[in-house]
Amino acid sequence: MKEPLNGDEGMWLPNALPLERLKKLYGFTPSKKWAEHIQKASVRMNNGGSASFVSPNGLLVTNHHVAESILHDLSSAKKDYVNDGFYAKKDKNEVKAKELEINILWTIKDVTERIKAITRKYKNAKQASGAKRSEIARIEKESYEKTGLRSNVVTLYRGGLYHLYCYKKYTDVRLVFAPESAIAALGGDFDNYEFPRYCLDVSFFRVYENDKPLKTPYFFKWSDKPSKENEILFISGHPGNTERLSTLSRLKSLRDFQFPYLLDWMRRREILLQQFSGKSLENQRKAKHELHSIQNARKRFLGQLKALQDQKFIAQKELSEEDLRAKIRKSKPLRKNFGNAWDILEKAEEKLKSIRDELYLFENAFAFNCELFDIARTIVRLTAEDKKPNHKRLSEFRDSNRESLLHSLFSPAPIYKDLEVALFEDSLAFMTEIVGTEDSMVKQILSKKSPSETASQIISETKLNKVSARKRLVNSGMKGVMKSKDPMILLARLADKRSRAVRKVFETSIKEVREQAYSKIAEALFALYGSATYPDATFTLRFAYGRPKGYVDAGKKINFKTTIGETFNHANLHKNIEPWKLPESWLKNKNKLAKSKVIFNFVSTNEAHGGNSGSPIFDKDLNIVGLLFDGNAYDFANHFMYTDEKARSVSVHSQGILEVLKKVYKTERLIKELIQ
Amino acid sequence: MKEPLNGDEGMWLPNALPLERLKKLYGFTPSKKWAEHIQKASVRMNNGGSASFVSPNGLLVTNHHVAESILHDLSSAKKDYVNDGFYAKKDKNEVKAKELEINILWTIKDVTERIKAITRKYKNAKQASGAKRSEIARIEKESYEKTGLRSNVVTLYRGGLYHLYCYKKYTDVRLVFAPESAIAALGGDFDNYEFPRYCLDVSFFRVYENDKPLKTPYFFKWSDKPSKENEILFISGHPGNTERLSTLSRLKSLRDFQFPYLLDWMRRREILLQQFSGKSLENQRKAKHELHSIQNARKRFLGQLKALQDQKFIAQKELSEEDLRAKIRKSKPLRKNFGNAWDILEKAEEKLKSIRDELYLFENAFAFNCELFDIARTIVRLTAEDKKPNHKRLSEFRDSNRESLLHSLFSPAPIYKDLEVALFEDSLAFMTEIVGTEDSMVKQILSKKSPSETASQIISETKLNKVSARKRLVNSGMKGVMKSKDPMILLARLADKRSRAVRKVFETSIKEVREQAYSKIAEALFALYGSATYPDATFTLRFAYGRPKGYVDAGKKINFKTTIGETFNHANLHKNIEPWKLPESWLKNKNKLAKSKVIFNFVSTNEAHGGNSGSPIFDKDLNIVGLLFDGNAYDFANHFMYTDEKARSVSVHSQGILEVLKKVYKTERLIKELIQ
Repeated sequence: MKEPLNGDEGMWLPNALPLERLKKLYGFTPSKKWAEHIQKASVRMNNGGSASFVSPNGLLVTNHHVAESILHDLSSAKKDYVNDGFYAKKDKNEVKAKELEINILWTIKDVTERIKAITRKYKNAKQASGAKRSEIARIEKESYEKTGLRSNVVTLYRGGLYHLYCYKKYTDVRLVFAPESAIAALGGDFDNYEFPRYCLDVSFFRVYENDKPLKTPYFFKWSDKPSKENEILFISGHPGNTERLSTLSRLKSLRDFQFPYLLDWMRRREILLQQFSGKSLENQRKAKHELHSIQNARKRFLGQLKALQDQKFIAQKELSEEDLRAKIRKSKPLRKNFGNAWDILEKAEEKLKSIRDELYLFENAFAFNCELFDIARTIVRLTAEDKKPNHKRLSEFRDSNRESLLHSLFSPAPIYKDLEVALFEDSLAFMTEIVGTEDSMVKQILSKKSPSETASQIISETKLNKVSARKRLVNSGMKGVMKSKDPMILLARLADKRSRAVRKVFETSIKEVREQAYSKIAEALFALYGSATYPDATFTLRFAYGRPKGYVDAGKKINFKTTIGETFNHANLHKNIEPWKLPESWLKNKNKLAKSKVIFNFVSTNEAHGGNSGSPIFDKDLNIVGLLFDGNAYDFANHFMYTDEKARSVSVHSQGILEVLKKVYKTERLIKELIQ
Repeated sequence: MKEPLNGDEGMWLPNALPLERLKKLYGFTPSKKWAEHIQKASVRMNNGGSASFVSPNGLLVTNHHVAESILHDLSSAKKDYVNDGFYAKKDKNEVKAKELEINILWTIKDVTERIKAITRKYKNAKQASGAKRSEIARIEKESYEKTGLRSNVVTLYRGGLYHLYCYKKYTDVRLVFAPESAIAALGGDFDNYEFPRYCLDVSFFRVYENDKPLKTPYFFKWSDKPSKENEILFISGHPGNTERLSTLSRLKSLRDFQFPYLLDWMRRREILLQQFSGKSLENQRKAKHELHSIQNARKRFLGQLKALQDQKFIAQKELSEEDLRAKIRKSKPLRKNFGNAWDILEKAEEKLKSIRDELYLFENAFAFNCELFDIARTIVRLTAEDKKPNHKRLSEFRDSNRESLLHSLFSPAPIYKDLEVALFEDSLAFMTEIVGTEDSMVKQILSKKSPSETASQIISETKLNKVSARKRLVNSGMKGVMKSKDPMILLARLADKRSRAVRKVFETSIKEVREQAYSKIAEALFALYGSATYPDATFTLRFAYGRPKGYVDAGKKINFKTTIGETFNHANLHKNIEPWKLPESWLKNKNKLAKSKVIFNFVSTNEAHGGNSGSPIFDKDLNIVGLLFDGNAYDFANHFMYTDEKARSVSVHSQGILEVLKKVYKTERLIKELIQ
């Protein structure tokens, strides 16, 4: 970031677009109105993705893989929305999602000075952290009471800036259309993060307000035209997390200490879920979404680790960090104010190493990794935190988040006890392996039984799979929870002290220390290069620009696009065996599609990261030309440093979607709404 | 073992059958001739399994999963013996295995006194270890020179006894029949270690001597009758490894330190192989055998770990160990001679912990895990060891093993460079993760490149995939190898010093210390209970007795057998989707089989462990009634302690095999030979 930006780099804040750069590179200057339209047509899916409006009647488009958890929650042994897909022929057939909240960023306010004024009062990181937390809670509460909007203070530039984001929030979201998972994710885990690709990674929802479709002037127009190589395109969405500003010590810690550990955990869960799935087709259905998530994460983390294991990559980072530090050393005021940030951050990484196991096991709940434990802990903590003043609470239990929290806690999404047992049992075994059988908590939990027996017993006896039981407990308050004999509540209570202890160490000795040190680095960067930079991703709204563009891979030219027709060749190459088996609906219409030159998937240089999935990709005139759904294999390194030699984002094209809606799915009502 | 034996417990030495116990339990007293017949009709497959003769013309029967590596080595992109199966209609169609040696145990001699006389001279474990190694090499060499037989001194009771085993050795073994892998391993990894089962886990070979079928009077007669519950049956085969004598400190070390580590490694390899396989059907074929091996090991290790994580199980072991130690404490001479064995073993486990990473990375070559590295290291070591006197060499390079070693080193089995790159790259990354990028060897090997680039370069440049290149290097001797510029040879040379260093520590500070301490425990047991015990498994010939017997699982009675007809129901239950998709040959003949009540698979209480796969299971009259191929899920705990409440061995029945040879495969020549 401290060098000049590289090509189409950047995840720009909606209120700080790179106007000069856009003008220089593309001769385009967006207006304020243009930016506001995009901001309000863009939607955050709180299950972890992005979306956008594509009609004035609340029609929302996102990826199939973002919708998958929603489809999974709607499914049962009798009806499998994931596998079979869905189309609501009439308005009244639209099916309400069981657990989904969407957010639209409505207003932004800079509150940096208000917060920094507080933290400047304290020398000690622990005190500063507490004071800051309180101030943030106050700001959020004031805002919520004033506007009624979901209000969150967002930490940008790792503590360089603080913005108050107010969101419109909707929880009545209904499914309109989803294709079969076989074509939504053709090639499955094997084609994931690859290109060329052939995925109909799309689904449509409708947002309702007061039981009526939401009326909105902010939407993208659906494009039925192909895209051309090198034309400027934009993405607006919610990249989840990047490490652009991260120091070398942080990257080395990720490489040597965090990623290998997390990958071992993920591979463990992946094999476990495969084993569970193998027992029957119904088991396969139950575990499918969880398995997809873990496979996706495993592939991403491994890709990022490989990038860091490349000595050339590290040498490049070393050089650029040394360059910045040398500049700071040369200037006395810079040196005095910012010079020690790297040492502080290195120490924070060391600290993290010393608490890693405890943090992941207890606060991140690897020791009890299943839905019913999450529910139990949320109830235990919610009722305990409620006893405290708002600004003293753990952040997720502040008043400003309460509605969203309860919406999720009381979700009627199905919980499968057999799957829960498998996950929970393995988690208990993992805990035992890490802390040993002599650990007093292990002894208390297992009390002379095996992890397997313990898990079976707790899961079979807990009533938390019933929403009514959860409501009853929340309503009974802390006293009621203390009296509960539900074994999962008892476990959550037992574990909570240990979990809170390590969380506190993390928040005061690592998180706050990091924020303060990174905010110094950010200030140094501002001092040296001005404000023409962008912050690391934070699962908040960002804009990225770029262009459709092919690349050369191992000497072979890769075209920027694939076509609907080529999809059949791709499946054939793999003998049409799962996960390359096309759905019946496509095979039936093969004669209409096999020669189609309509663009299906394409790559572009726009920046995008996990959380961006489902983001609209659109032209200057606000025509949506597709949905971002992936990166190629070279994109992993972009987590740390942007390059556009081979790294690309992958999108499914609007024209291709329209073509198959017409020829395969014959979704007339939906087509009409898109191209009205 | 120190308690009275439990039920049908025991893996008995061929020259020390439990005569009294057999008489007491089954009223049967085997004759010496009976025992000799079995010994000489039993065969060790040096790729890691068991087999037996079933005709006077060298016809050998074993499991399909034991044959799989042989079938894999015979296969190519054009012909897939694993997937498609094989039948030699005529003698001349029998296909020679590319890399297989079989051994038949011909004579046994007790050499305990000769070895112990040597080790008694030394107080110091390191010196004792060296002297013992030399003496063993001398015994083996004398024997080999005298008899021409493969001669190995076998350590029994972990150092309580030493026996000299002389084997007849054959390397011309030809494939006669193998079924399709789809039915050989119906249900794949998911059904593995489960019961009820429906697997045609069988294949037939013929042993040749001087290009003619081997004539032998020692063979089992094929039984075409069903087996009855509770009738006595025997198994003779080569169980690989058990931990019956192991101390509590050893079991805890396995539980807390070895198994979790190995499982992480296995899951890592499993996912890697899945990813490689997913790229194309040809990749799938190339990696299939390796993937099966790792899945099988992962399931077994996880099962064993789960057994150890059961607090009740550990408590039981604790009790029985304490009982023995109390008895020893009570007797002054016992106390003096044997009392400290447990403390010594506990220290040895501690020592193992301190060298675990180095041992697995370098001596077990997890850092370079691929075939071409193994070949390079064997060449580097062979030529170096050849410079030493025989008794000073690493054990695998002694003269007595030379023929077998070269047979394997010069095998023309195919090596797939793309698969090698995938395995090697991940190994280099693993090494980097464990020892860090600052490690001097890592720096030397990667020299500013990524593990991926390094692996691609070394694998693409090495010539060791060609047998001629290997022969040239071996013939050039140590000098030639030192001059070689082959990058894999250079790597093997670079790594060898470090690898030998840790091996030496392991052999002197752990292996020898263990042997001495365990031999004390064994002596104490002899002193307390006499010699009516059996040693832990050592991949040498053992006899086990038992009976077909059902069991109760989760309240449900499990019949001891399955039938050919039920196989179709089982596949249907899983919608005939892979790995439950029956082969064409079975589907074509469904009408002849679907109602068949002929016994297919069955369980019995006979002891069996990895390495026993392919063992004949036979009656008192030496009729073979099946082949052992697996254990059920409760059998994992038997690795540590025998019980027969629910633990069972699983076999495929001779009657079922015969039935499908007749009705599906129509292998007339083979059928005639079996039931002549």
